[in-house]
Parts: sequence; structure tokens; C-alpha cells
Amino acid sequence: MKLSLLFSAAALAGFSQAAKKPVYKDKNASIDDRVADLLKRMTVKEKMAQLIQGDMTNYLNITDGTVNKTGLKWNMEYRANSVWTGLYTEMETIQKAAKLAQDYLADETELGIPTFVQSEGLHGFLALNATIFNSPIGIGCSFNPELVEKMGNIIATEALALGVNQLFSPQVDLARELRFGRVEECFGEDPYLVGEMGYSFAKGLEDKGVSAMVKHFAAFASPEQGINTAPVSGVVSDSHLLQDILREEWGYEYYVISDAGGTARLANTFYVCEIEDNECITLEALPNGNDVEMGGGYWSYEIIPELIESGKLDEDVLNTAVSRVLRSKFKTGIFENPYPGVPAKKIFDYINTKKHKQLARQLDTESIVLLENHDDTLPLKKNANVAVIGPMAHGYVNYGDYVIHTAMSRGVTPLDGIKAASKGKVTYAKGCERWSNDDSGFDEAVAAAEAADVAVVVVGTWSRDQNELWGGLNATTGEHIDVSNLNLIGAMPRLVQAIIDTGKPTVVVFSSGKPITEPWISEEAAALVQQFYQSEQGGHALADILYGNENPSGKLSVSFPYDVGTLPIYYDHLNSARMWPNPGKAYENGTLDFGSTYVLETPTALYGFGYGLSYSEFEFSKLSSSKTKVSSSDTITVSVDVTNKSKRDGAEVVQLYVKDMLATIDVPRFQLKGFKKVEVKAGKTKTVKIDLAVSEWGLWNRKMEYVVEPGEFTVYVGNASENFLGNVTVTVA
Amino acid sequence: MKLSLLFSAAALAGFSQAAKKPVYKDKNASIDDRVADLLKRMTVKEKMAQLIQGDMTNYLNITDGTVNKTGLKWNMEYRANSVWTGLYTEMETIQKAAKLAQDYLADETELGIPTFVQSEGLHGFLALNATIFNSPIGIGCSFNPELVEKMGNIIATEALALGVNQLFSPQVDLARELRFGRVEECFGEDPYLVGEMGYSFAKGLEDKGVSAMVKHFAAFASPEQGINTAPVSGVVSDSHLLQDILREEWGYEYYVISDAGGTARLANTFYVCEIEDNECITLEALPNGNDVEMGGGYWSYEIIPELIESGKLDEDVLNTAVSRVLRSKFKTGIFENPYPGVPAKKIFDYINTKKHKQLARQLDTESIVLLENHDDTLPLKKNANVAVIGPMAHGYVNYGDYVIHTAMSRGVTPLDGIKAASKGKVTYAKGCERWSNDDSGFDEAVAAAEAADVAVVVVGTWSRDQNELWGGLNATTGEHIDVSNLNLIGAMPRLVQAIIDTGKPTVVVFSSGKPITEPWISEEAAALVQQFYQSEQGGHALADILYGNENPSGKLSVSFPYDVGTLPIYYDHLNSARMWPNPGKAYENGTLDFGSTYVLETPTALYGFGYGLSYSEFEFSKLSSSKTKVSSSDTITVSVDVTNKSKRDGAEVVQLYVKDMLATIDVPRFQLKGFKKVEVKAGKTKTVKIDLAVSEWGLWNRKMEYVVEPGEFTVYVGNASENFLGNVTVTVA
Repeated sequence: MKLSLLFSAAALAGFSQAAKKPVYKDKNASIDDRVADLLKRMTVKEKMAQLIQGDMTNYLNITDGTVNKTGLKWNMEYRANSVWTGLYTEMETIQKAAKLAQDYLADETELGIPTFVQSEGLHGFLALNATIFNSPIGIGCSFNPELVEKMGNIIATEALALGVNQLFSPQVDLARELRFGRVEECFGEDPYLVGEMGYSFAKGLEDKGVSAMVKHFAAFASPEQGINTAPVSGVVSDSHLLQDILREEWGYEYYVISDAGGTARLANTFYVCEIEDNECITLEALPNGNDVEMGGGYWSYEIIPELIESGKLDEDVLNTAVSRVLRSKFKTGIFENPYPGVPAKKIFDYINTKKHKQLARQLDTESIVLLENHDDTLPLKKNANVAVIGPMAHGYVNYGDYVIHTAMSRGVTPLDGIKAASKGKVTYAKGCERWSNDDSGFDEAVAAAEAADVAVVVVGTWSRDQNELWGGLNATTGEHIDVSNLNLIGAMPRLVQAIIDTGKPTVVVFSSGKPITEPWISEEAAALVQQFYQSEQGGHALADILYGNENPSGKLSVSFPYDVGTLPIYYDHLNSARMWPNPGKAYENGTLDFGSTYVLETPTALYGFGYGLSYSEFEFSKLSSSKTKVSSSDTITVSVDVTNKSKRDGAEVVQLYVKDMLATIDVPRFQLKGFKKVEVKAGKTKTVKIDLAVSEWGLWNRKMEYVVEPGEFTVYVGNASENFLGNVTVTVA
Repeated sequence: MKLSLLFSAAALAGFSQAAKKPVYKDKNASIDDRVADLLKRMTVKEKMAQLIQGDMTNYLNITDGTVNKTGLKWNMEYRANSVWTGLYTEMETIQKAAKLAQDYLADETELGIPTFVQSEGLHGFLALNATIFNSPIGIGCSFNPELVEKMGNIIATEALALGVNQLFSPQVDLARELRFGRVEECFGEDPYLVGEMGYSFAKGLEDKGVSAMVKHFAAFASPEQGINTAPVSGVVSDSHLLQDILREEWGYEYYVISDAGGTARLANTFYVCEIEDNECITLEALPNGNDVEMGGGYWSYEIIPELIESGKLDEDVLNTAVSRVLRSKFKTGIFENPYPGVPAKKIFDYINTKKHKQLARQLDTESIVLLENHDDTLPLKKNANVAVIGPMAHGYVNYGDYVIHTAMSRGVTPLDGIKAASKGKVTYAKGCERWSNDDSGFDEAVAAAEAADVAVVVVGTWSRDQNELWGGLNATTGEHIDVSNLNLIGAMPRLVQAIIDTGKPTVVVFSSGKPITEPWISEEAAALVQQFYQSEQGGHALADILYGNENPSGKLSVSFPYDVGTLPIYYDHLNSARMWPNPGKAYENGTLDFGSTYVLETPTALYGFGYGLSYSEFEFSKLSSSKTKVSSSDTITVSVDVTNKSKRDGAEVVQLYVKDMLATIDVPRFQLKGFKKVEVKAGKTKTVKIDLAVSEWGLWNRKMEYVVEPGEFTVYVGNASENFLGNVTVTVA
């Protein structure tokens, strides 16, 4: 009590000093000055409120729209950091929640600190009618950061239209543990590719005025056994990670928020604190660099004023955390424009516009990877009679996780897309349910295939919208849905076999959130196409590829193993891994061909990172480097000519991998350090120039110092991690 | 040249000083003094020779026994550290090699430094006719360190009889990556069990005068992808490991030797040095604490004199390494007794004696784990007619790796053992080959089962003797033979099914080097017995268990997963792993029951570490601790009464697991910290007392300091890691 009065007095003093306009309200003042000025005006309780996530349901009934004013006041007194709005409700309700919050803060609080209005935006703004892009694991396959930045612009535009100014994206985890349910949420397995994509996405959001919450920090996506939230190797969330590395080494100036229930996990999962011991939890999390507490736990941070009063928590620690939040709010510009929502009748000028759908289609098209194309089965003739088969071909749209409830009933399915593109007869037979071994639908599917010129069989994995996923409905991927093998489940593999056995050319499409391990399909299907979880335009995107309206240019963002038993399979393994594979094989006829690594399997990838076919053939020539004797601060430009030797326009992804030839430690065999997607007209040649910063060729040495070691580096150019078409040696002095 | 003359002069000076007996030859002098005295008499070349492994084939034709004296001199000039003898040859040849070496060194070198005569001894001395014990993964299941110490005594006795004074055992790696081919060489997955077994084995060897080479240092057995010699998480062999931890923290005073080809791996695997750049390799390995170089690489250490002369290598570094070798030789006592070999005609008084075979049988018996015993199928009636079936039941004896060439044709097979124990009719049908899908032998096997009262089906994995294994013959386990799944291969699972389908009670025996994942056999077989790779008496040991001459007392040294896709499966996972498993299941009738961890599988163990059934039922009562308020330096005694409630004598393993209830980091859910195997007569009770050192309850905190943190610890008593029968709370102040 006493202390709280003291601080209110201090705050009043601050106001009386600044009779005109306080510095923090001056948009021309520096952010440092604005933060300092505002901080000194705040009570401990106000500071606490900036460190706890709020929720629109605290003051708004999201079903009937009624407002609870007491709840609104309470939310802002205790949880003013942000208002969570990522829930299934009408668009207008989100606008209402945002406007209520910002108006209350501006008009009815002394300091008028605006709040972050938060939602999800993993591959589209998580709201009804917002544009749904394809899942990140697919987006990674586009190798096209420019499109990702445009996607970020679109997602920001749609979010801002409803008053949402902060999104929990991009996700920049690495897809290196393929059993993990959230592989689909990652841009891929490679740090450089994921970094480029994550950067472009964040830039796309922030250029429009949305705060991008990059997640998850750190090493989140390689949990033991592939199980969601299981421990990750070598990392404990402590001050070394959050202070020494993130703040001191990287210079990050903004705030860190725990994930849902994350602070509580200190008690109920890690047993560092007793259950609901909020003092222990807060003193563990806050001083070690976790500034803000998300909901889903015990709201432990509400104990902050008590800890300040008792002297257990240093107010400098509190001020540091609050400063980071305020800095984020000033930087995002929400003091100047707290409510960016548009008039209700104009919503569709901003949300799910034709332009937005077009970009979703283009990005999806560029994300599709052609894995096999025996006897040039693809592209299909427009007038071919096509039997579309499989549970992922129609019905629920096969989106990945982080889509709004009911979204899966909206969008263009593969069947829709093929029907729209075809000039022949298109029939559909589901063949089987995705979740069952029942093969009673096979006969119909086989008959459809037999009556057609070609069969397109769409099978794979499936996820759910956020409500269904957490409601426990069946799924094989998505958050908290982890698998112990990567095979097609239920009747699906037998359905594929039955259709191939008809003798009709069978194009298999894997519609999935992660690699599938059915190597026999690669051999036996006429063609194999990988479309990771689709956008709302995904059926059109697929048809564009199948019919050759677009030339495939997607490259795998993640390596495909032969079997779950060979994981991990990422391409940039240490030199000492998979040194001399001696694979064996169990043939379908029963013959066993014995090897030693592995006895009856191979430890290398079926399809490596960066792999993907085109309908065109590209040739690389005239590889050169602007410099071959360099220092670690140099940037070199690598140049290569790409010739399209086919009669069809197309695009190729030029990939540069760098190998440190000798190092003081065991290092990755080579690593992607640059890439560019280039469109080349039929018969033409283009010169591609890619910059490589030598400073990115370093390693953490035995003293855990990051150094670029002198010596030879080989820069390989290729169109896949396992297909190098030239190289140049660069010597670092 | 100049430097070498200088050192020879110094050595001569040393001799002239000590006209009587040099200090280093005085067995009553301290080892420190002896090392110092000897070191100062040695030339750089002599020192170098102490750091390189030799080989008997350098001077002895091991086929015809002819001696090459030039080769002998050369070996001792360049590779005097040791003489490798672990090759397929007559026992007398090894004796000859040992005697030639020691006599030459004693009589024809100035200093007369004896050599280590080396071989393997993983589960028996690697020589023709030496006693073969069961593989370590099985020995771990005995939970009987006293027997392991006796085994060590026997192995030492047999080795010494041939003049061998150093063995490359025990192996103390942890079996935590079950795809790895060398799982069978580990005593189990648990650090405490493995530590106790390794200690007892080493003590058993060293008490008899054999130098025990503990391997592998460190973290060797968890390679990425389960592939032999692939990288292990978080460890690089550097001075931190070899100097800071091994020497400074642990106080280890003896020498470290690279594994075969290990130094060369700095070049051909890790790319730290150029291929055959011996200067780089030596300057990398020696100063960082790798004292001695084993063969199989480039013999890089021969460059040592050149490096000393050029000043690139400090002679202090060389002296430190040589001192460690000399210290080991003095400590082992080989200066006093360099050749312990026995007269040729007396060899069988020392090797493979009746007593040795008896111990092999007892240890093997105690290692067998009864996994399932539906309807008390076991023990079998002595007069039952038994059909013995399966490729592991007879023919090649199913030993693990590290047995001498041709060993697999010698020993008691399951069929031999059952025949010897049975008073009924015993028939045998192989059913199938281990390496094939061919089921043409099924009919005979089914007929045999139908004609018998009970079927015993022996299936599993197989390894090879050292020559066959490296010669590339098929195998499914053993050094460099790694697998991508843990199922029975080829026709074996169908053979098991066919026999079960006869309706005859079917006892399945897994004869293997690692866990097998066929959970349906646990349900459908009448009984399931795990016998890890057997000893030469293994058939008798198995029959002892099957017929109830012995009551099963083995407990699993390693957890059994349901499927390879759920690895790692070790019981002492961190608290945050497998927190709330929500398993699914694919039923044989095609029904899919969806879960989330995993979608169609379970992440927990089918059989946990420490599990094993008995023919008796034991009850635990009166659990108490000598103290419940302790300091970290205390040792407490936990007491529990074990009652055998059956009418059959038996043995139970009392297991104590300790859980740190709250810690500053995420710690293992609980860990084995004590155990005792106790024999209890039918109907009787015994009080078991087990000491627990509180100092072993610590953790490495966020600063990587080892500390026992104050607070509550729960000591659980049980007969398996998943079956606790009581607990007591102990508070550390």
C-alpha cells in the first residue's frame, strides 16, 4: 500500500512537470527518451500490467458481442501488455475488441499506453475470411523470399483492418526432427533458408505496421522422441540464452514473451518451482530475461508488486523488462495509430481480395515440388479424361494447423482445381477415408481409374483447425500431434497400389505436412508431386503444375528419408556422419540384400534438401567468383550462367553451398549460404549473381567463439544439395 | 641427429650414476620415483616407441610360427608400448609372441622396459578355447556385480596363462541408441548399473594382474542416426575432455590410447588435418591428452622425434604422456613379472576349466529375463515332449561380437541344453534361415510343434566372429552393423506366428544383442524369454530357466520400445519428456485408434529398465532409511524386507531409484542409485540393506558445476523402474 502510494505520487509529479505535452507522447522524440519519460510516470502495478498478456474474452462475449465494462477495466489494470484475439468469432467482434481496448486506454487511463492486439499469423491472419496461404514447410520450397515478403504485407494488411497490430509469426524453428507434429510450421531444415524466409516475412509485416513476434527461441523443434514440448538437446532457457546471447551478443532491444503456459512449466514440467509457487516462478523467469508472461499458466507475474514491496525483486529488473515492452510499442507506432481498423462495410476491400488470392496461388504454385516424372507423364494433356482419387483430393481442404475453425470447409481442393483446368472428363472417387483401413471404396476408385486416361491420387497426412486439433479430433500432424513413423496410414497406401495396378498412368500427389516415406511409390507411380499443406487456392496451384500452365520450380525445404528409423536426415550433417554408407535392402520379392549401415535400409536421403524437378532442363556454366583471396569481412559475388535448354519457359533455383575444407573441429559437410530463383525463357540464358558474406562461413570453435578460420573454402553451385554442377575455391586469409 | 646423440649421452650418464640397481628397477621404490628415474634415462626415440602400439605380426608369422628377428627389433624400436595379439591363431602362438617380446626387451634393450601384451576381453579372453561368457548387455541383466568380478578374475587368469597382460575391457558405454550395432557390448542404458558392472569387471582383471583398458571415452554409443562412429551430441575429443575432466577433475593418472585408426580420423573423417599430415595429427592429438596411438591409421606418432628436434613439440608434453604409460606399466607389475605364461601342457589347467564353465553358466542363467509367462506356462514339465524351432536354436552358437574366429562352432546351443535337461522327446526343426524370407521350412516346423506338447521357438538377431564380421558376412548386430528398425527380419516373425497358430503352447525365446520390437508376440506367445547373446554354456542356462532348475532373476539392463520410431526410450529421461503420453494404436483387425503422442503408437516402454518376472512372488515391506535429514556428504542405509511368498526358492533384485523433487534445472525423472540381488528361500523373509551416498544425487547446474542441491529427495524401492513398491523421503540440508 505504502509503496503503491509513493509511486502514484511520483507519477503525478511527472505529469505536473510536463504541463504541455509529455515527451513520451511526442512522436518526434527519440524512442530512448520516450521510454525513459514514460517509465518514470508509471506505478509498479502499471508496470506489472505491461508484462502480462490480456484477452478479449475478459471484457467481450465473443458469441453475442456484449461488453463487460468491469472486465475491460480489470483487463487493463492487470493485463495491459496485449489483448489476445486469436479465437473463432466474427471479424467485427475482433474489431470491436480492439477498438474497445484502445479507446479505453486512450480515454480512461492516465497514461494512455496503447496495447498490442494480438493474433496468430503463421500462414495467414487467423480470422474468419482472412486469406489462407500454404503452410511454411511448403513456402520454404518456393525459395522465393520476395513472395514471402509480399505475403507478410498481405497478412499485415488483413490484420490491421481488424485492428490487430501484433502477430505470432514468423516461426523460424528448423524442421530437423520429422516426427514432430509442427514440422509443417517450419520453413525447412536449413538455417540459412529459414533465416531468409523468416526475415522476409517479418519485414513484410513490420513495413505495414504490424509487430512480428518471431518464435520459438530456441531449439524448440528438435524435442526428444519428436514429442511436442519434450526436452531439446543442450539448451535450457536461462539467462545465458536470454541475456548473454539474445541481448548482449545479438543486441536485441525488444521484449521476450513466454509461450502459452510457459512460465507454469517451470513448476508442472521442469520441477524447478512448486506448483503455483508464483514467487519462485516470477523470480526465475523475469530476472533471467523473460519479460512478459503469456496466459495459460498461473498468471504468476501478478505477484510482481508484492515482490517489489518485499524487496525480493529489484525494481531495476522490472524497469528493464517494461522498457523493452514500451520500446516495442513505440517502435511499432501504436502510440500514434492505436486502432487501424477499417469500416465494417469496407472490410472486403482489405481482406481476402482478388490480389491476395492471386498471391496465395502464385506462392503455392512455386512451392509445389515435382519429385518424379517417369516418361514425361506430366504435364497432362488438357483434354485427358482424369480420375481424381483419394481422401485428400476433395472434401475438407487439406490445410495445415493454425487455421481458424471452419476454415477447412472453404477453399479450392485438388478436385476443384483440376475440374477448372481440364477440358476432358473429370471423375472423383474418394477410395477410402483418411482415418480408416476400410477399403470398401476401392472398387469405385479402381473403376474410375480404369475408365479414365490418367489417375491423380491425392493422399498424405492431415491436420485440423485450432479448435478441432485441441478438441482431440483425429489428425496425423499439427501442434501436439507427433508420429512414430512417416508412412501413409490406414488404407491409403493400398489405395495407391490398387490404382497403380490398373495400369493407367498414375500421378500420385502427396498432400502433407511433412515428408512421407513410401519409396516404392517413387518407383511405381508414373509421376510423384509433393504439395505441402495447401493455400486456399491450392487446388488451382496444383492444377497449374499438373497441366503445365506453370513450370514446377519448387525445391524441397526438407530432406526425405527412406524410413523413420534413419532420422535425423538433414543434409548438412557433420563430416563424421554417414561417412561410408553401406546400405542393405529388403526387396518386395522377399530377397534380403544385407548391408551394414543400415542392415536393410539406407541412411542417406531419398530426396535431398533443395531437390526438385522442372519440365525444363537447365544448364549451369561460366561459374566465377568476384574474388578468390578474401578476408572474413569481404562479400564476394558469385556469378553463373543459367541456360534453359527446353522449349518451355521455366525457373530454376541456383543454390550455393559452402564447404570449409579443413577446420579445427568437425563441421557440417557443406551448408547453403546463398540462393536465387531465376526465371529463364525457353532457349535463353541468364547470368545470376549471388552475394556471399564470408563472415557467415564461420564456426564455433572449441572455446565456443565464433570465428571464420583461415584456409580454403569450396563454393559449390547446384540445383540441389546432392547435385553440384560446378565449384570455385575461395581462400580466406 | 644432434639431439638424439644428446639424449643418448644423458641416458648413459643416468646409468653410470646408478652403478648398482637403478631406482626404476626397485619394486620397493615409489611409482613416482621409478617413473622419474626411468624417464630421464630414455631417448626421445625410446619415448616415442612407448606411445605407439605394436603387433605380434611384426615379428611372428601367426600361421606357421616362424620368427622374424629384424621385425622384432624394429617393433621394439618403434612400437614398444604394446604388442597386439587379438588375432585368430593357436594359443601357443600367443604365448610365443608374448615371450619373444618380453625376453627381447629384458635381454636385448638397455632399459628393459616390458611391453603390454594386448588382446580383447569384452566377454571372455579373445583366444581360441578361452571361456566365452554371455554378452555385456546380458550380463547387465544379472544385476550381480559379484559374478562380474569373478568373471574378470577368470578372464584375467586365462589371458595371463598365455602371457597377455592387458585387455581392452570393460566397455562402459551406455546403450541409449538402440539402432547402434554395439548395444550388445554395453552393460545397459543406466549409468549407475554400467558403472557398477564396469568397476567390478576392471577390479576382477586388475586384482589378478591384468591392465584393464576401460572404453570408450566418452559418449561413444549414441551416434547420430545410430551409425557406428557417427558424431555424438555435445562432445568433441579435445583437451577439455581429456585434460580438464579426465585428468584434472577425475584425477586419472594413467594413459589414454586412441581407438583403431582414431588419430587418422582427425584427417579422413573430421577434416581437421590433411590426409596423412602426421605433423598436424600428432600436434592435435598428443598435446590435447591422447597419449598413445593405436594402429589402423597413419602411425602419425612416428614423427615425434622430428617434432621435438624442430621445436614444434615441447618435450614436456612428450614426457607427460610417456610418464603415464610408464606409470601404468609399473602399476600393473609387469616390470616384476613380464611373462606370466604357463607351460603349454598345463594350459587347460588355466583355460576353459570346469570352474570357469560353471561360472559362465551361472552368470548366463542369472542374465536371462522372463518377460511373459501367461497361465504359468513356464517352467516346463521335465517329461514334456518339446519341439525346438528356429534358426537361433541350433547350428551356429548365437554369440555376440568380439569372439574369436570359429568360436561359433563351439558351445552349448538351446537345443543342446534342452536335450540335456529334458526327460521327454525333443525334436528340432529350424523352420527358416535367419537371413532369408524363405518359408519352405515352415511345414516341418509346424508338424514338429503339432506333434509335441510344447514348442520353444528361438529367434532374434545375430552377430559374427571378428573375422567374419569385418569380412562382410551378413549380420544384424555387432560392431559397424547398425539397423534402422528393431523388428525380427526375414521369415522369422512369420515362423513365430505359424507356430503360435498351431495352438500348442509356444514359448518364444529372443536370442539377440538388443531389444526386439514385436509387441504382438508378448500378447500371443504363451511365454516370452529374453536371452541376450549367450555364453558357451548358454543352452544349459536357458534350459535351467525353462525347466525351473533355476528361478529367473534377470532384470532388463535396457528398456524395450514398441517401435524404432519411439527412440530414445531409456527410463531416466528428463522430467519434461513424455509428460502426458496420449498413445494411439493400429489394431491387427485394421481399426485405428488415434492418439497424439504418438498418433498410432506409444512413447513409453513396452518393458522398462529393471523389469523381469520370477516364478516366485516377492513382497517388499518395512522400508526405512537410517537417516532422513542428511548432508551431501552422508551415506544412508536403506533397509527393506523381502518376502518370498511362493513355494519355490528364488532371487529378487531390490532396486532403489532417487528422485530430486525440485531442482534448479530439468533433471531425470528418477535414477537408479543402488541395487542388490537377494536370494530368498520359499516362504522366508530377508532384510536387505543398501547404502546410498548422497553425494551421488547431484546435478550439473546452469554454471556446469556438480552440486547436490538442498531439498527433498524421494527414494523409491521397487523391482523395476516402472514398479515401485514403497518410498521414503530424505531431506538434504
